[in-house]
Amino acid sequence: MSEHAKTPGTPTGPESGPGTGVWFIGARGSVATTAVAGCAALAAGLCPPTGMVTETEAFAAAGLPALSSFVFGGHDTLDWPLPKRAEALAEQGVLPHGLARAVHAELTAADREIRTGGPMAGDTRTDEELIAAFAADIEDFTRRTSAARTVVVNLASTEPAPAQGEARLPASSLYAAAALRAGCAYVNFTPSTGERHPALQELSRTARVPYAGRDGKTGQTLLRAVLAPMFRQRALAVRAWSGTNLLGGGDGAALADSAAAAAKNAGKNRVLQDNLGTLPEGQVHIDDVPALGEWKTAWDHVAFEGFLGSRMILQTIWQGCDSALAAPLVLDLARLTARAHQAGITGSLPELGFYFKDPDGTSSALAEQYDALLGFAARLGELR
Amino acid sequence: MSEHAKTPGTPTGPESGPGTGVWFIGARGSVATTAVAGCAALAAGLCPPTGMVTETEAFAAAGLPALSSFVFGGHDTLDWPLPKRAEALAEQGVLPHGLARAVHAELTAADREIRTGGPMAGDTRTDEELIAAFAADIEDFTRRTSAARTVVVNLASTEPAPAQGEARLPASSLYAAAALRAGCAYVNFTPSTGERHPALQELSRTARVPYAGRDGKTGQTLLRAVLAPMFRQRALAVRAWSGTNLLGGGDGAALADSAAAAAKNAGKNRVLQDNLGTLPEGQVHIDDVPALGEWKTAWDHVAFEGFLGSRMILQTIWQGCDSALAAPLVLDLARLTARAHQAGITGSLPELGFYFKDPDGTSSALAEQYDALLGFAARLGELR
Amino acid sequence: MSEHAKTPGTPTGPESGPGTGVWFIGARGSVATTAVAGCAALAAGLCPPTGMVTETEAFAAAGLPALSSFVFGGHDTLDWPLPKRAEALAEQGVLPHGLARAVHAELTAADREIRTGGPMAGDTRTDEELIAAFAADIEDFTRRTSAARTVVVNLASTEPAPAQGEARLPASSLYAAAALRAGCAYVNFTPSTGERHPALQELSRTARVPYAGRDGKTGQTLLRAVLAPMFRQRALAVRAWSGTNLLGGGDGAALADSAAAAAKNAGKNRVLQDNLGTLPEGQVHIDDVPALGEWKTAWDHVAFEGFLGSRMILQTIWQGCDSALAAPLVLDLARLTARAHQAGITGSLPELGFYFKDPDGTSSALAEQYDALLGFAARLGELR
Amino acid sequence: MSEHAKTPGTPTGPESGPGTGVWFIGARGSVATTAVAGCAALAAGLCPPTGMVTETEAFAAAGLPALSSFVFGGHDTLDWPLPKRAEALAEQGVLPHGLARAVHAELTAADREIRTGGPMAGDTRTDEELIAAFAADIEDFTRRTSAARTVVVNLASTEPAPAQGEARLPASSLYAAAALRAGCAYVNFTPSTGERHPALQELSRTARVPYAGRDGKTGQTLLRAVLAPMFRQRALAVRAWSGTNLLGGGDGAALADSAAAAAKNAGKNRVLQDNLGTLPEGQVHIDDVPALGEWKTAWDHVAFEGFLGSRMILQTIWQGCDSALAAPLVLDLARLTARAHQAGITGSLPELGFYFKDPDGTSSALAEQYDALLGFAARLGELR
Repeated sequence: MSEHAKTPGTPTGPESGPGTGVWFIGARGSVATTAVAGCAALAAGLCPPTGMVTETEAFAAAGLPALSSFVFGGHDTLDWPLPKRAEALAEQGVLPHGLARAVHAELTAADREIRTGGPMAGDTRTDEELIAAFAADIEDFTRRTSAARTVVVNLASTEPAPAQGEARLPASSLYAAAALRAGCAYVNFTPSTGERHPALQELSRTARVPYAGRDGKTGQTLLRAVLAPMFRQRALAVRAWSGTNLLGGGDGAALADSAAAAAKNAGKNRVLQDNLGTLPEGQVHIDDVPALGEWKTAWDHVAFEGFLGSRMILQTIWQGCDSALAAPLVLDLARLTARAHQAGITGSLPELGFYFKDPDGTSSALAEQYDALLGFAARLGELR
Repeated sequence: MSEHAKTPGTPTGPESGPGTGVWFIGARGSVATTAVAGCAALAAGLCPPTGMVTETEAFAAAGLPALSSFVFGGHDTLDWPLPKRAEALAEQGVLPHGLARAVHAELTAADREIRTGGPMAGDTRTDEELIAAFAADIEDFTRRTSAARTVVVNLASTEPAPAQGEARLPASSLYAAAALRAGCAYVNFTPSTGERHPALQELSRTARVPYAGRDGKTGQTLLRAVLAPMFRQRALAVRAWSGTNLLGGGDGAALADSAAAAAKNAGKNRVLQDNLGTLPEGQVHIDDVPALGEWKTAWDHVAFEGFLGSRMILQTIWQGCDSALAAPLVLDLARLTARAHQAGITGSLPELGFYFKDPDGTSSALAEQYDALLGFAARLGELR
Repeated sequence: MSEHAKTPGTPTGPESGPGTGVWFIGARGSVATTAVAGCAALAAGLCPPTGMVTETEAFAAAGLPALSSFVFGGHDTLDWPLPKRAEALAEQGVLPHGLARAVHAELTAADREIRTGGPMAGDTRTDEELIAAFAADIEDFTRRTSAARTVVVNLASTEPAPAQGEARLPASSLYAAAALRAGCAYVNFTPSTGERHPALQELSRTARVPYAGRDGKTGQTLLRAVLAPMFRQRALAVRAWSGTNLLGGGDGAALADSAAAAAKNAGKNRVLQDNLGTLPEGQVHIDDVPALGEWKTAWDHVAFEGFLGSRMILQTIWQGCDSALAAPLVLDLARLTARAHQAGITGSLPELGFYFKDPDGTSSALAEQYDALLGFAARLGELR
Repeated sequence: MSEHAKTPGTPTGPESGPGTGVWFIGARGSVATTAVAGCAALAAGLCPPTGMVTETEAFAAAGLPALSSFVFGGHDTLDWPLPKRAEALAEQGVLPHGLARAVHAELTAADREIRTGGPMAGDTRTDEELIAAFAADIEDFTRRTSAARTVVVNLASTEPAPAQGEARLPASSLYAAAALRAGCAYVNFTPSTGERHPALQELSRTARVPYAGRDGKTGQTLLRAVLAPMFRQRALAVRAWSGTNLLGGGDGAALADSAAAAAKNAGKNRVLQDNLGTLPEGQVHIDDVPALGEWKTAWDHVAFEGFLGSRMILQTIWQGCDSALAAPLVLDLARLTARAHQAGITGSLPELGFYFKDPDGTSSALAEQYDALLGFAARLGELR
């Protein structure tokens, strides 16, 4: 067993052999840092696994890799060391005080496995050269850590929606291509294009790996995925659904760019369109509010009509910490896709729609997505 | 065909023979008035059937009685004529202006079929005498209107929770006994005891009619029935769920009485207990705010924990009109139980849990309840 | 006394001589219609004067013209008759049912005094010709109605903020120039440029009439004008103030145009800047949501810091009817400026800052503005 | 100069002679701990004085004692050391991490000056004996610390409203009597009876010290004190004002006791009654929600009528930390009353109504109270 696989403490899961690699695109971001720190804390028994769906009873027999078997690495373009990042997250109340110190060894281990991503400004490499370089980084990681397999998870800042006729691949698709070429399962937790780029269609088919996406469903859209079905099931007529998101952190700054916001909003709208059968009036705003730090607030205002045209209103206010909401889902997805890979399941995984705003699957109602996820867990349990 | 069956206009449904009686306990209240006026408006094509679940595609083949076949009557202890009540509801914005006039004939017809209920203060009749009198009223109504069968729906003000060792039956149970004795399907749309009283157990079994309850799920609890499953499915730990309801109308006054509120809150708590597996901290307040008229506001505050103990909050504000929310559900339930009765289904109908806060069924998650309801519709469609 | 002056019923105020003309730019809009209908209703004693500040005790001795003395006219580019407009407002719940019929005569009288405004598309008149035509309309109205004087109030849809170096005057400034040239007091209730255009500086000085503006403070900014001083007085540090407005009606459509929204937001920001001493983070969105009809919802989210950097949040949700909020203020302003004109007060009236988002005065705190208004009323009472 | 007076660092204020004693009833509670820690942090320049009104420009010349001159002591019935309490508050996010350590010396110094209060269960001392014992504790503190004078501030948990005909004095009045007897200025920051007990009338008059109260205005009532005047000034008719408070910490538990809540609500209602001229419909609930820790949420729902009876709604949600809101006001009050005492001002201080829900003064509008406070500061500046 590699040095890394031992770090998170005694393996507690069904798999005590070689580790499972988890490679984050955006490995120095808040979500990745929280995932690495949290995984170590859970493996060491320091915290209960709140927010991790795969730690609930229904997944006990699915043969998922133990959290203690995870070894982390990734690409990033920043230089901030993970232990320092974790301290900053503790200042913001995202991580419990003392945790950063308690899992310092694991943070440092992950930090050592982070490679410089790209393309940076002035980078003259071609798309093909970039893909090859990224794939080599991932393969090298898998080899050195003796991981049985590696899952690549995109956690990078949201890209602007690609312009029509853009000749080059967006960065998210470069990384996705690298993951597929390195024979890794791939998860796109962002609204960026990733493996959905038309130019990657052939590679997706031939790579024989499982992949899932896109755009993690952590807050406002999670709510919409249970509220919109409620309106439909009760035959209430939604007239307008308006929303405003206030985000601090890097996410707010990235999404305040209107093209990136457009990418994000496409996913939010899809949930309404799918569940209501039509897209009601209303807009979604995403504001950058640095004063909120790692916290975000989402206000939704739903104007609907009931019997005989009576007018009613539902408003929701969600105040959450995006990193804390996203990190356990990221760990869930890493476990599920790693296990699917091991079990020989390939291609798109629509059964993971529970986790995404813009899923590969067809349903956008959370309850149906949850049923599909439970079915997937049962199926994994039967495969060996 | 009776005079009444013709009133709502040309029958549009599958059943064009004898009418279906609908007998409201609390026949002069806001919900009953809205149901009578709305049924007539829909039968005449004046409004779209917003809020009526049984008018959606999934129920088209269930063989439900047409709205145009409904004839209305009921018990009440008040004297206010239905057409005047409807005018007052239009003033409050519950009914569209002009509607009360457009369906004046139907309101007057229903008004003529309302009998004085009880027991009033000073009433010296025994429980048995009251049950007999109520049953005679219902049987007389069914006979005179030539209805094929009658459904009795309890819409009366919420009773205080019965005291331990109370010798007499609460009024809701007297009416329930009368319904069963008259061979009628029975729906308890209120939190009152109704047919669940231990003294009615034997009668419920031998009456060979279907019945369903209790406590219509129209607002705050409807929301809770989709939000609580969301927290559970995402493995988020709800720490406290607090709520305040501001109600005008008669409902606010009735529920401000703390014993009645206790009855109501039992249902609200059940939804949380069932869906979360445990009852979180927090209280529910019900305030009488006459200034709100027929409208109500429900604020909910949910404190929950996510990954690594991070603290987050969801708040919801629901501003609705209770009568407009309840009336279409009441018409749905009348159709479904009348059809069940016709098809020979007897006893408790757990498949109607979708409509209730404190259902006979076991699930409290709305999505599962909706699935059960669709299954029930399919089963009705197969029975003839 | 003219036919018009008699219309609103027996004069009830201190002034029973000639009427006071009120000329609305945007005379067929919701606010103007509500003002005309409401003025008639109040003059006839049909409703209490809720929302009218000048009907409170403090203004009793200020010598203001009676509401019954008002005669209405105006410019508009639409053709919709006022009585029909009033019916539509009653459908929306803005006017009480029955009111439109009760004041039909007054609505018709005002309707007859509405002239076509401009410039319409294709209008080839020069600015000077337009000003002359508008001024002639106003003078003709004053003459024919034998009004002692006329106040011109701009209620037209918000214009886009004028581009730098635009050669022609915006419509609001054309009308303002016409008002000044016709010797009328002028009120700008909108964020448009009006009399503040540099080209009108000389005319404003020489016209010897009082004027006031701009941008009526009816909802979100009204709240901000009391909340921002609270934060300052308590030495709490506002870090971010974010807001979203959902507007139906024509206002939403006009303001969704981003240039018009920019004009509006300038006023909103000024309240924060003036009261907090600095402009905090945060944006204001104005969304057009036709489903809301005449109603609007404003959500504000204030992130502030307290002792030792503790982070706290205040949120406000304002659900109001803009026409009902604006109309009584418009009548107040017409009375106050007419009286000022009569008393020989000329030029800008900073004492009316209580009514405006972007006032001529220096204070933006509501309490100070209210004190200034009371002082103005006292001063008017002393002048004869 | 005593050892204590030196602790908070170099005096920065105008007064560099003997220290000023601050004696807290409830000296181990969250507010007292935050005040002691915060005073030390500010005196040492570790934090900006956010939330301290007396640190703003308008108070610079009032001759207030410097924060660095404060020495702390008090009564409490608990045993929890202040440094540990401060650590717990840092865990809750009330104090910045690291602060407890940075001001450990000052916390320990204050901790040494805390004496056991009473009466505890089973205490057989008479009221007179208790008063004498408490007064001796305070006098001893003043003497040993060589303080020029001591201010006694009641921060203890809210008492139940005293029953009619209760023979013994409530604890808050025992402490108030002790303060007066010890010749100390007295501030009642709680809704308890304190010096307002009829039995203390004579003592209040003869003690020749200043006193102020009661019930610090930190959240919901602070908001009401600016919003209620807004409705009045705009002539809008408030129909119902409803509120719910969710409190963790000890405060929630104390106030969930309905008698204590009644005491608290009296103050909240007074703000509405005074500012609106009438008490609207609506209730205030105070719920104990331990999951919220030191944080509290207050939701307010205001139903009001505008022009022509139009119905509108304002809702506010205040999420704050009570200790962080209260502590700077407590320090403000200690400075102001100490200075008043020094300047020879005696009796009730209505000019401090800005700080209280149920002030000695007559105005309940925050803006007027702020003006009165500024006037008081100016007056203090003139006295020497």
